[in-house]
Amino acid sequence: MKSYRKELWFNVPSRRAFVNITEQVAHCLAESKIEEGLCLVNPMHITASVFINDDESGLHHDYERFLERLAPHEPIAQYRHNDTGEDNADAHIKRQIMGREVVVAVTQGKLDLGTWEQIFYGEFDGKRRKRVLVKIIGE
Amino acid sequence: MKSYRKELWFNVPSRRAFVNITEQVAHCLAESKIEEGLCLVNPMHITASVFINDDESGLHHDYERFLERLAPHEPIAQYRHNDTGEDNADAHIKRQIMGREVVVAVTQGKLDLGTWEQIFYGEFDGKRRKRVLVKIIGE
Amino acid sequence: MKSYRKELWFNVPSRRAFVNITEQVAHCLAESKIEEGLCLVNPMHITASVFINDDESGLHHDYERFLERLAPHEPIAQYRHNDTGEDNADAHIKRQIMGREVVVAVTQGKLDLGTWEQIFYGEFDGKRRKRVLVKIIGE
Repeated sequence: MKSYRKELWFNVPSRRAFVNITEQVAHCLAESKIEEGLCLVNPMHITASVFINDDESGLHHDYERFLERLAPHEPIAQYRHNDTGEDNADAHIKRQIMGREVVVAVTQGKLDLGTWEQIFYGEFDGKRRKRVLVKIIGE
Repeated sequence: MKSYRKELWFNVPSRRAFVNITEQVAHCLAESKIEEGLCLVNPMHITASVFINDDESGLHHDYERFLERLAPHEPIAQYRHNDTGEDNADAHIKRQIMGREVVVAVTQGKLDLGTWEQIFYGEFDGKRRKRVLVKIIGE
Repeated sequence: MKSYRKELWFNVPSRRAFVNITEQVAHCLAESKIEEGLCLVNPMHITASVFINDDESGLHHDYERFLERLAPHEPIAQYRHNDTGEDNADAHIKRQIMGREVVVAVTQGKLDLGTWEQIFYGEFDGKRRKRVLVKIIGE
């Protein structure tokens, strides 16, 4: 069994954004030389998400609006987590809705994705350096 | 290490439905001859979900009502994704709430599920042929 | 390839609670002697969740309030699942929002977690004995 590990670093200039990382994950897989296996992709932070969906700006607008409706950033004081001095309680909630991680099949040395499946880093508390872990195991 | 891959095809006649696919996944596992490992099951589409919960029609009604309340299909024009000519923005949101994929342990050649755990294909934009990927790795 | 399996048992005295199980999962990993691989952690029940987030009581209060707002326990009669004699339809919904499982990378014999990532058992229908499955594969 082979295994591969890489950290991808991001510094999103806004509080929230969706960044397409499919190419970077595909590059990791090529580097790993793994042909058959599983590829785990997860943020190493608890106010961000890795998820798979469509690379379409209208949809990203809809996600943003949906998440803000369910767990609005303001007023900050509505969340007990923010009593600790933080202002990111909403980001912890948004990340749970969108999910932490994806596991992608690796087949014949490629990410085994459907036609429209794209891997995104979902940032909900940006403006600082944060990491995504790519771990691949297989043969 | 062994690996196994299969596509399961579905054509759900309604827009939304929950289809129990536990038996089909168990059949894949038997075919794979893998005794110990991990089994990934995911739709290859971004308006569908694979999730684990109860095979009880009242609960499925509750899920349907819950998801329609959070992200209603209509009015179509409330979503910017639908400006592209699509009418399925709600399906992209519903799938994020229910999750994309499940990873199931494989132990002694069986899906290592609890008593009530059943694997479902959750369709949110049906009436056409769509695929679920089953990828198993192990020994 | 090595594989490891363990059941962790919980009996949460309240209906809902978040229990930090990171140490117990790390103990499983040490027992497994696996150095590189993937670690799956999932409840074997459909009214509970395993998720990764912050061990901060204010945030847990915020999650509880958020989940009760989206899928309130009462009135019981609002859910068709509860017509079966159950009173836990809300727990089935809450678990879908928080997610079923986590997959954690194993690197150099350790859970490859970010600084603040902690693994939680999320109970939404407690007061009885329930199990979490830890399955690790790798080398």
